[in-house]
Amino acid sequence: MKKHSTNLRVRLPALVFALEVMIVVLYIFFVTYDDQTNALLQNNETKPLENAVYKVYPFFADIQVMIFIGFGCLLAFFRRYGFGGMAFNFLMATFAIQWAILIQGFFQFYDNGKIHLGVINLINAEFVCAVVLISFGAVLGKTSPVQLLVMALLEVPVFAVAEWIVVKYLKINDAGGSILVHLFACYFGLGTTFILYRPSLNEGHSKECTSYHSDMLSLLGTLFLWVVWPSFNCALTLRGDDQHRAILHTFIGLSASTITAFALSAMLSKNGKLSMADVQNVTLAGGVTVGASVDMMISPAAAYILGVLGCTACMLGYKYLSPFLAQKLRIQDQCGIHNLHGLTGLIATIAGICAILLASEETYGPSLYQTFPYRAPQDGDPRLAELQKLIPGLEAGLGRTAQEQALYQLAALGTAIAIAAVGGMLTGLVLKLPYLASPTDESCFDDELFFNVPLEYHQVQELQDAGCSETQVKQVLAN
Amino acid sequence: MKKHSTNLRVRLPALVFALEVMIVVLYIFFVTYDDQTNALLQNNETKPLENAVYKVYPFFADIQVMIFIGFGCLLAFFRRYGFGGMAFNFLMATFAIQWAILIQGFFQFYDNGKIHLGVINLINAEFVCAVVLISFGAVLGKTSPVQLLVMALLEVPVFAVAEWIVVKYLKINDAGGSILVHLFACYFGLGTTFILYRPSLNEGHSKECTSYHSDMLSLLGTLFLWVVWPSFNCALTLRGDDQHRAILHTFIGLSASTITAFALSAMLSKNGKLSMADVQNVTLAGGVTVGASVDMMISPAAAYILGVLGCTACMLGYKYLSPFLAQKLRIQDQCGIHNLHGLTGLIATIAGICAILLASEETYGPSLYQTFPYRAPQDGDPRLAELQKLIPGLEAGLGRTAQEQALYQLAALGTAIAIAAVGGMLTGLVLKLPYLASPTDESCFDDELFFNVPLEYHQVQELQDAGCSETQVKQVLAN
Amino acid sequence: MKKHSTNLRVRLPALVFALEVMIVVLYIFFVTYDDQTNALLQNNETKPLENAVYKVYPFFADIQVMIFIGFGCLLAFFRRYGFGGMAFNFLMATFAIQWAILIQGFFQFYDNGKIHLGVINLINAEFVCAVVLISFGAVLGKTSPVQLLVMALLEVPVFAVAEWIVVKYLKINDAGGSILVHLFACYFGLGTTFILYRPSLNEGHSKECTSYHSDMLSLLGTLFLWVVWPSFNCALTLRGDDQHRAILHTFIGLSASTITAFALSAMLSKNGKLSMADVQNVTLAGGVTVGASVDMMISPAAAYILGVLGCTACMLGYKYLSPFLAQKLRIQDQCGIHNLHGLTGLIATIAGICAILLASEETYGPSLYQTFPYRAPQDGDPRLAELQKLIPGLEAGLGRTAQEQALYQLAALGTAIAIAAVGGMLTGLVLKLPYLASPTDESCFDDELFFNVPLEYHQVQELQDAGCSETQVKQVLAN
Repeated sequence: MKKHSTNLRVRLPALVFALEVMIVVLYIFFVTYDDQTNALLQNNETKPLENAVYKVYPFFADIQVMIFIGFGCLLAFFRRYGFGGMAFNFLMATFAIQWAILIQGFFQFYDNGKIHLGVINLINAEFVCAVVLISFGAVLGKTSPVQLLVMALLEVPVFAVAEWIVVKYLKINDAGGSILVHLFACYFGLGTTFILYRPSLNEGHSKECTSYHSDMLSLLGTLFLWVVWPSFNCALTLRGDDQHRAILHTFIGLSASTITAFALSAMLSKNGKLSMADVQNVTLAGGVTVGASVDMMISPAAAYILGVLGCTACMLGYKYLSPFLAQKLRIQDQCGIHNLHGLTGLIATIAGICAILLASEETYGPSLYQTFPYRAPQDGDPRLAELQKLIPGLEAGLGRTAQEQALYQLAALGTAIAIAAVGGMLTGLVLKLPYLASPTDESCFDDELFFNVPLEYHQVQELQDAGCSETQVKQVLAN
Repeated sequence: MKKHSTNLRVRLPALVFALEVMIVVLYIFFVTYDDQTNALLQNNETKPLENAVYKVYPFFADIQVMIFIGFGCLLAFFRRYGFGGMAFNFLMATFAIQWAILIQGFFQFYDNGKIHLGVINLINAEFVCAVVLISFGAVLGKTSPVQLLVMALLEVPVFAVAEWIVVKYLKINDAGGSILVHLFACYFGLGTTFILYRPSLNEGHSKECTSYHSDMLSLLGTLFLWVVWPSFNCALTLRGDDQHRAILHTFIGLSASTITAFALSAMLSKNGKLSMADVQNVTLAGGVTVGASVDMMISPAAAYILGVLGCTACMLGYKYLSPFLAQKLRIQDQCGIHNLHGLTGLIATIAGICAILLASEETYGPSLYQTFPYRAPQDGDPRLAELQKLIPGLEAGLGRTAQEQALYQLAALGTAIAIAAVGGMLTGLVLKLPYLASPTDESCFDDELFFNVPLEYHQVQELQDAGCSETQVKQVLAN
Repeated sequence: MKKHSTNLRVRLPALVFALEVMIVVLYIFFVTYDDQTNALLQNNETKPLENAVYKVYPFFADIQVMIFIGFGCLLAFFRRYGFGGMAFNFLMATFAIQWAILIQGFFQFYDNGKIHLGVINLINAEFVCAVVLISFGAVLGKTSPVQLLVMALLEVPVFAVAEWIVVKYLKINDAGGSILVHLFACYFGLGTTFILYRPSLNEGHSKECTSYHSDMLSLLGTLFLWVVWPSFNCALTLRGDDQHRAILHTFIGLSASTITAFALSAMLSKNGKLSMADVQNVTLAGGVTVGASVDMMISPAAAYILGVLGCTACMLGYKYLSPFLAQKLRIQDQCGIHNLHGLTGLIATIAGICAILLASEETYGPSLYQTFPYRAPQDGDPRLAELQKLIPGLEAGLGRTAQEQALYQLAALGTAIAIAAVGGMLTGLVLKLPYLASPTDESCFDDELFFNVPLEYHQVQELQDAGCSETQVKQVLAN
């Protein structure tokens, strides 16, 4: 009966078809084209080459690579769970994006009874998708595809609420999503895995390890994430010099964390050798740590230092904190997202607050009020008119001081972590419901459970050695 | 003698050098730069940043990824035919593009005795290349590189004729190439494999299967195709909102077919497990099904539904139609191109016709006559002058009604399939000629035939266990 | 003691932290934002969408793929040195780029006591990085990460001096970097490997071979290099038609060398089979051979012929020259960089000189003096005013004739090779210092030396067969 309970034949299609009906109905009744996509809204003054698609598509394309290829390969690091890592990432990502288009659409792109759709919505939805995939890292190998879809189904709206509170009420600076993406995703994932605690896995699992080829593929995923990360961090910044800085800082931060990761990996290992898990994960820490201040005038040196700090925290986390969390706090964080997204997200948030407190007109000129729009004077303030002479398009802000803005950042930090942790735990409870095909402890990290896995070559030869006829072998292979 | 007949030592260089001499001669006498590439045609009013290269290069780059990396990895799914899948794809693609530049150049870019060349020709040639590579899928593992080059040599001109008839005389809407690319490629490939029928392969072949690593690599190819498909479907659409919609619809269609593929894979398998072949192929169906209407105002919901429909047809095709074709109709379709490109291409064509019949000025406004240029009023029609007030650049069309346009789409469908099937069969006959190094049935799907394949690790150890000296082993390895 | 000397536990962190302190100090004191990145320098006339980042970022992104993914996979071709190939490439590249930003910054972007930083500096630094990685190919598998960092540490300034002499004094045309990138990198690498000569490796090494999977991964790297090479060759050309031609010629040259490589591989092999090493390397020769003339009006036919010539030279080099160099001249060129970058670089240089000698106003019009800026008339020459009427922005040049320019190209060739060879040999001497963890001959090409390598599946089974308990096996795996 245990065995039967992981059969996907009915469960997966039933859930998928239900989700699809829901999505199609919502699409039919609530989704229409935005004004850059709707043929009817183009007129004789429209310049096709100035369509918004050309500003956002290159970044969208890079983020697609990040989501599907970068995450897909990186999560395929287990010896016998490559299919699961890569294919479930594919499944979850496609669903999460569609679901985020709708949920986020209701919160942010809803007008006149309709969600207005363009490629910019896809980018926003892919940020939500990144959140879901990071959380996925905490439960990798221990969940069925049915559970993963349910997890995405629940996480997307919880995230949308948190995002809505932060964007609508708290109004923070966080171009790289350190708070909303990385910290939220981390604590949601930890909440879920805390509830899904499996004591027996703390004693080790024979499949919970890598192979030479899975390590190579996973590193390839790291390289893809590394290469497109600047596009991720700059996709939602202001155009122009802000976006230029975001690319520069991300690149420098990643470079610093990469070289540091190699050094620390050798230094902290028993035998003075490098560990591929460090090369795959810790190298990326700098991309997160520069996130909250990525578009600010922090200086290239600060980006470099943030990369080194983030990498060090992440590495120490893998080495000392993760085992502690698993053994003492029942938090089995499979991919160590608390190190790569949690600790680094905290550093990023603190760095962002420092950058906010240090930001002044001396450094930014009047464009200070573009990079920090909530510090711009309020409507009616005579200072606003003055600034608008210098920057014609400047919009009225909230007249916040740097200190006030810093407090809002802290408030956002608390809000995101609280909602994430509670949401994650509730999601964990739902995932424990029967009928969701949860794997047994023994069948964790094993593709055999959910996939028809091809025989290895030596298995074929064993069959032949055992006297199977050519036809019998072919039948086994064709299965 | 059989064995000798697959030796490439003379055959392959002889053919390649002959092709290269032909290509060089044609380049010398008939190819020159177009007016965006020719230094002589730039003048003091030229704005370098408005050179056409900047509009098309990003799409060209994405299609390069599709052709060389996406197809290359996807076709490497056989356990022992990874070299063949990836390297023959590389060989065929580079030749097909060069050949298409010339052949398509004569049909479409010929002026004053010269083919005028810019990056836009490369994009067009890569569409032809995609046709050749799809057809290749039908005969994968059963053909020599010599045969594959001959196949490309013949398919490109046959395609160019079909394209010329459709573009010059029938004039259809088919931005994603559902008819010209997918259906043509499918029936050409089926025609070829029909002639190359190998009865013994219907009984199975011990190498006709995947391995864990080949499945992973093939899925990586799928992910690359998935990620760049929007660029493929929008590369040749009108700039502006049309291109914006094409990206949106492709993404939505692919998302829908991906999640559906997982559900159907579990549902239709005997043991309720997922099959990697489905995840690799059927997930992509939505990219084809939205193709013919991809730039039209079909609504996001319709794109989603097309993805689901396409995926379902494709999956049922793999499950029930492919075995039938192989057993009863002598059509051994190795990669199931009839499912992924044929059935989906038909659905796309029908969807395109529906979208054409439903298109009206109420939905599109006056830009209806840009998206459907053949419905624009003819020269001299007073309605044209009226419309030109609304859209200054509008060109005179053919004054077709929606119904007329629908009939032309049907005519193109018939034309493409007929030319493709006949051309494919004739090509198959040519490929049966002697001296083309056709593999024997036993050596199909096996890299040993055409490549020096490195020994596996256990083979090396067997040599050492068998008492070979270090030097002898090194000699074997160095070979 | 020998064994102990390759322990990275102290050596690698010590070197890395020293380098990081140096980099941070230099960043703090000498690096600031350039005028496209500095918020303070934007004003009410700044158009954010015209920020320089949008012109260069797409090319930067492609070159990132080339450096980290293309090189990373290509260099992972050894059976048991995949971690080393891919991860050391990652380490070296990140350090080399940071170091090049600083060193090159002092030579080329230094103003008012500061290096001014934007994404354009990153592109320039990635060209230097490509140089370092090509040289790395000569010593792949025979060097420790400590040695590799030292090599990058020394090669970057030596290169910067050569570049400075060529750019500042000789002033040549070399858009694709045939002389400065490929030839310099080649002779630097050969110089280094000459000094690091290991006689015992000439007798073969049991790990110096590929496996099926490493060959596939390496070919994937080739395909990435192939696909993004046009971006590399055009990244630093003039915008407009020059860049358009550079893309076109690179694509044609690569296509020609690819198909030729397949033909020659079959022709020159003993048994008429293809060799993957040829498909991985020789196919790329055309990208180098078109390099020096890539933006000139050489005609598409010439680009094709250059691809064929380059491929032929490269293939003959692998077949006959490399063994000769290793056996007779003590130059063990691991990846055959002398074939892929040296011989082809020479051909490219000669082709560039021919293209310069043939260039005339008849072919280029007045933009001749933009593509060849040093041939533009000098300040004060009445011809300059005349030309400036035709091309408003034309700057004064050096009034060189074609013949003079050709001589300067030759001078640059000699300068680059001489500096590279001497610099490479001196670097080799430094790398022979003790404490740099140089591998012994037996442990070359083996990841076990510097990485914790996961057990293979059959090794796990052997442990179990040998009576190890589940717990013991888990401990071994967890290590």
